[in-house]
Amino acid sequence: MQNIIKINFIIFFLFFGANVVAQQHPSLMLTKVNIVAIRKGCDSLPILKTSYLALKADADEALSTTINVPKPVDGGGGYTHEQHKRNYTSLLNCATVYQITSEKKYADYVKTMLLDYAGKYQNWPNHPKSKSLDDAGKIFWQSLNDYVWQIYAIQAYDLVYDTLNKTERDKIENELFIPILKFFTEDRKVVFDKIHNHGTWNLAAVGITGYVLNKPVYVKKAIYGSNLDGKTGYLAQINKLFSPDGYYMEGPYYQRYALLPFILFAKAIQNYQPELNIFKYRDELLAKAIHTSLQTTYTNKVFFPINDAIRDKTFESIELVYGSNLAYADIKPDADLLDIVQQQNKVIISDAGLKVALAIAQNKAVPFNYQTLWIKDGAKGDEGGIGVLRFGQNIDQQCLVLKASSQGMGHGHFDRLNLLFYDNGTEHFYDYGSARFLNIDTKGGGNYLPENQTWAKQTVAHNTLVVDQTSQYQAQLSLAESNHPTLLYFNNTPKLKVVSAKEDHAYENISLIRTSALLKIDETEKPLLIDVFKVIADKPHQYDLPFWYQGKIVNTSEKIIAQRNNLTALGTDFGYQHLWLNADKKLSSASGFISVLNKNRFYTTHFTSNQPLKIKLVSIGANDPDLNLAEGKAFILSQSDFKNQTFISVTDTHGNTNPVKETVTDASSIITDLKLVEDSITQTTISFKAKDKLYIYQINYQNKNNYINIR
Amino acid sequence: MQNIIKINFIIFFLFFGANVVAQQHPSLMLTKVNIVAIRKGCDSLPILKTSYLALKADADEALSTTINVPKPVDGGGGYTHEQHKRNYTSLLNCATVYQITSEKKYADYVKTMLLDYAGKYQNWPNHPKSKSLDDAGKIFWQSLNDYVWQIYAIQAYDLVYDTLNKTERDKIENELFIPILKFFTEDRKVVFDKIHNHGTWNLAAVGITGYVLNKPVYVKKAIYGSNLDGKTGYLAQINKLFSPDGYYMEGPYYQRYALLPFILFAKAIQNYQPELNIFKYRDELLAKAIHTSLQTTYTNKVFFPINDAIRDKTFESIELVYGSNLAYADIKPDADLLDIVQQQNKVIISDAGLKVALAIAQNKAVPFNYQTLWIKDGAKGDEGGIGVLRFGQNIDQQCLVLKASSQGMGHGHFDRLNLLFYDNGTEHFYDYGSARFLNIDTKGGGNYLPENQTWAKQTVAHNTLVVDQTSQYQAQLSLAESNHPTLLYFNNTPKLKVVSAKEDHAYENISLIRTSALLKIDETEKPLLIDVFKVIADKPHQYDLPFWYQGKIVNTSEKIIAQRNNLTALGTDFGYQHLWLNADKKLSSASGFISVLNKNRFYTTHFTSNQPLKIKLVSIGANDPDLNLAEGKAFILSQSDFKNQTFISVTDTHGNTNPVKETVTDASSIITDLKLVEDSITQTTISFKAKDKLYIYQINYQNKNNYINIR
Repeated sequence: MQNIIKINFIIFFLFFGANVVAQQHPSLMLTKVNIVAIRKGCDSLPILKTSYLALKADADEALSTTINVPKPVDGGGGYTHEQHKRNYTSLLNCATVYQITSEKKYADYVKTMLLDYAGKYQNWPNHPKSKSLDDAGKIFWQSLNDYVWQIYAIQAYDLVYDTLNKTERDKIENELFIPILKFFTEDRKVVFDKIHNHGTWNLAAVGITGYVLNKPVYVKKAIYGSNLDGKTGYLAQINKLFSPDGYYMEGPYYQRYALLPFILFAKAIQNYQPELNIFKYRDELLAKAIHTSLQTTYTNKVFFPINDAIRDKTFESIELVYGSNLAYADIKPDADLLDIVQQQNKVIISDAGLKVALAIAQNKAVPFNYQTLWIKDGAKGDEGGIGVLRFGQNIDQQCLVLKASSQGMGHGHFDRLNLLFYDNGTEHFYDYGSARFLNIDTKGGGNYLPENQTWAKQTVAHNTLVVDQTSQYQAQLSLAESNHPTLLYFNNTPKLKVVSAKEDHAYENISLIRTSALLKIDETEKPLLIDVFKVIADKPHQYDLPFWYQGKIVNTSEKIIAQRNNLTALGTDFGYQHLWLNADKKLSSASGFISVLNKNRFYTTHFTSNQPLKIKLVSIGANDPDLNLAEGKAFILSQSDFKNQTFISVTDTHGNTNPVKETVTDASSIITDLKLVEDSITQTTISFKAKDKLYIYQINYQNKNNYINIR
Repeated sequence: MQNIIKINFIIFFLFFGANVVAQQHPSLMLTKVNIVAIRKGCDSLPILKTSYLALKADADEALSTTINVPKPVDGGGGYTHEQHKRNYTSLLNCATVYQITSEKKYADYVKTMLLDYAGKYQNWPNHPKSKSLDDAGKIFWQSLNDYVWQIYAIQAYDLVYDTLNKTERDKIENELFIPILKFFTEDRKVVFDKIHNHGTWNLAAVGITGYVLNKPVYVKKAIYGSNLDGKTGYLAQINKLFSPDGYYMEGPYYQRYALLPFILFAKAIQNYQPELNIFKYRDELLAKAIHTSLQTTYTNKVFFPINDAIRDKTFESIELVYGSNLAYADIKPDADLLDIVQQQNKVIISDAGLKVALAIAQNKAVPFNYQTLWIKDGAKGDEGGIGVLRFGQNIDQQCLVLKASSQGMGHGHFDRLNLLFYDNGTEHFYDYGSARFLNIDTKGGGNYLPENQTWAKQTVAHNTLVVDQTSQYQAQLSLAESNHPTLLYFNNTPKLKVVSAKEDHAYENISLIRTSALLKIDETEKPLLIDVFKVIADKPHQYDLPFWYQGKIVNTSEKIIAQRNNLTALGTDFGYQHLWLNADKKLSSASGFISVLNKNRFYTTHFTSNQPLKIKLVSIGANDPDLNLAEGKAFILSQSDFKNQTFISVTDTHGNTNPVKETVTDASSIITDLKLVEDSITQTTISFKAKDKLYIYQINYQNKNNYINIR
């Protein structure tokens, strides 16, 4: 067996490295020169084989049903919407299987369907369910989906091109693809030139179609913008939408989505115009974007759900399958990308997929290198960023995320200095994500729900400070977009990982500084999460610092009595109208703790402040007549008597329960005596004991050489 | 490799089948005659090897710490409690590893610890944290844990017996085990003779100790009761605690727990007194008990959490590891038990574990045979039972459970005709289980919480009918124990599985009949759950039929508006005081539906009744000052105007969402036009359409030959 694989490797390598001949078909993800090698690979390389068999099963299922190209009438999740989505997937699946099997029936399916679309497309008006005429598609309710459709369809066309006669090609090109190109570049010119992911999808569809149809004018427009001046177009999008670290301002969920047109078009450019060196562009920006996308996931594969995000989106998503394959095959063969591919358990049936599958068969994979890093935001890298602190092996990693990035356009949340905390393969302090039931027609057409605005975007829905029960920037996008947080300090050493950032504009005359750290001490098995949130204001305010947690409270330092028989909303606006106030407790001591059992592990959050705090226990659900909100619970550290206030918390991860064995270990935290020793504009000093050892943890806000001092 | 294993198999078999010589040590789970074969197996048979290595790691960890036998002071989950639990585990682990390795250090550890206990035991008073003097242990707060301790300790003693000199044996026996025997049989005589799982643990500890110490008088008492008259003791427990089907009246959670002393003692009896044929006793009752225990789990390994139950208890639990091993090795080698062992991923280092590991290495395992069955309850099998309906392969099985069993003593819930529904590897309509944070000291000492009585046991906490907001039998145990439901009909055919039962005594002058079925029709991929709950009364009442569901409501037939800003408890007693009333909707139509998205699959429950229903949406949490309750949501079908009322529901499993692929299929149920056509004392007839096909479903309550008629 080992020998057989070795022989195959040699055969495969012979076929690599050849340049694509322009106007040869296919010439995109899958190129003519590598077809024979890919066919072999689909038969012998495990991950390529299973991926191919899954694809072929889908293609065969498509073939078993009647081709159905309905007149577009439904919104997201509705019948025609889902049918046209299925159609573009079936087109690409069947076209790919045709290349592997050479069986004409698959090519015929593609031909018939494209001809069907060609016969109907020009009769379709703007979609009746569109929300605005500027953004209406023809096949879908929003033009975005039309762009996606075309990216799939043009690849399918490229794959079956050689099986079509001139009459067929003429009909498909003149009655479908050329009208589409016109629709995208003329009717949707504003989108085409917009620096935004919708624009990227539009121009990538146009550019790739331009290559396949040999219409260089469209390619040029796609790369350099409508006016060919580089102010818009693909290169401008790369320049403006990503930070120098490859971070996309809308956040990980949309970064993933935005990536696909970027990398598909890049691959087309690389094949047709290798002289543009597109993968090297802007210091290998596309490679960075793929890697950064992966670095904004936790070890459970899920993207950090900051800003508008579907909370269960993972890097198994097709965009990142393309991303990992192309990053490894076309940009730089980092062996840890193969770990990602193995977890995706799938490759693209393509030149890149072959290369990746070969490397995996050669056992080249190493564990993905999750990093502790500061990811800069802003086109120039000077608009804040995301701090990611990690500790431990991938198998049981602790991860802290501090969101100190720019607003992220319309999908941004008002959550500067929001903190997420992961451990044990799960969320502990988490982000709600967006209020949306994706593609479920009965829930607001599958779009963002009204509660996305009234709840999910509001500050109190996040683990960051709320002043006077009002959201940052009063939840006004234009105000929020004009400012960004600032990184004060970042450091990564084996036992201490720290990120410190400030936000001066979210509230008038108030400065917010959050310094969050993972500190490993000898007395605990896992690092402590030490979080210091400092507020400096010109007058007293009501301060609320929520911690949205997963799990169940099992212990508190002082008895907290929950509301028995009358729940009311905590407020009337800025998300507070959606909070049930379950308990409201004025602590008698300067410090306290709350212990939570989450996925059979204990997390005790010790807290203190300048004066005894109020603890509010809240849950989501008030003023939600349509049951649009998900469940959720938080404890809020609250204080209303002071101008300046510093909220200290130390979260200790300890012990576990094993319900199968019925054992409990270390149910109590060994951290005690948490104190705020000193607090000024320049310095915060806290102390705590771990068993009997005293720790002093000092932040020097104005001394970057000694920012954190521990003794 | 294949050859090597084959050779080993022959060697192994040579060592099997020999009878134990009494008073040879060891002679319990692991017998002297098989030691050599087991040592080989620990080296070569995969599952035995990994099990042994895990055990050895635990033993080595024990050896690395100082022996610690603290004076017992803490309750469940507390320090001394957990330490003594660790001690008994370490005793058995180290003693077992001694037998495999012959390394003296492991035997010495056991010796030292037992001598330590022997030096202290007699000075310990009844445990200070005991809840009643009748039930106090010496080592633990309740004597139950002392019995468990002894069962582990005596096995450990047996395993290291040959390494001890006479002085050591005398000290351990005279100062520890004999006093323990006296404590169990004299001070705890009431428990010893009680027909109850605490009694089983007590007498099994006594009996096994009697064998090992060669004290036949204790063995006889254990088997035949204190008076040696067979009215109490082990055989009486087998006779009275189990039904002829091997069902244990307290329910699956306690059945699992109760099993261990039964089967450990049985194994000892089999080894020492094979002439008693204990495994054949009462028509192989112990084998049935093990199999029935496994049949009361779902394919996610979790026990049906009826009555007092920890909801995440699985058959990976050590009792069932013993159970599956002994059932296969000592009773009947059913190949599907090997599937269970593989899922447990562990065997006992024992004669039985060797046999099972060998069979697995020989690839004898077949998928566990989950059955559709009626499990009789009651010592004579005439006190109701549990109906279990299953459909589909283990990989994606649908399962319906109808609880129509007897009360189950103090751990029983007031939930006659409770219905559970599973699909897609998860719960859909579920049972709350018990209100308890097992072993978490800060939550009521880890014991049952007050809310177990005020909430978890109450009828409304279950998926069964509540009359006049009052629990069945007014939640009085004595009343409930004197009656049981009756099976009316049970049938299992490929496309229709039905269970029908009635309960006439839960409410005065009210008869309850529930007929639940899984019906597979051609139009749907999965069976429909058809549930008909008939109430016959002498005057009008308030009827509430809750469906406690997992997931999120995504659609309703009529708009339901949830409470915006003032939640109040639905009632004042019988669990209603713990329900927040989120919505209360009087339907305008005779039928309606609620669609729930649960783990990416849709479940639409269509319902109708004699007159338009009220729908109440409720959630758990009112009057819970200590935050003892878990979250939960139900929709309640409600009606208050009639004497006789029949609640019909048809739950259709359909479609799915894929958040990674962002696809949605079949979000709407194809079932429509649900109607109650005719309803009388003798007959209920409903109709519905599946796409365009009309189905008539008729129940003939008095005709067992045509109980369900479908056309």
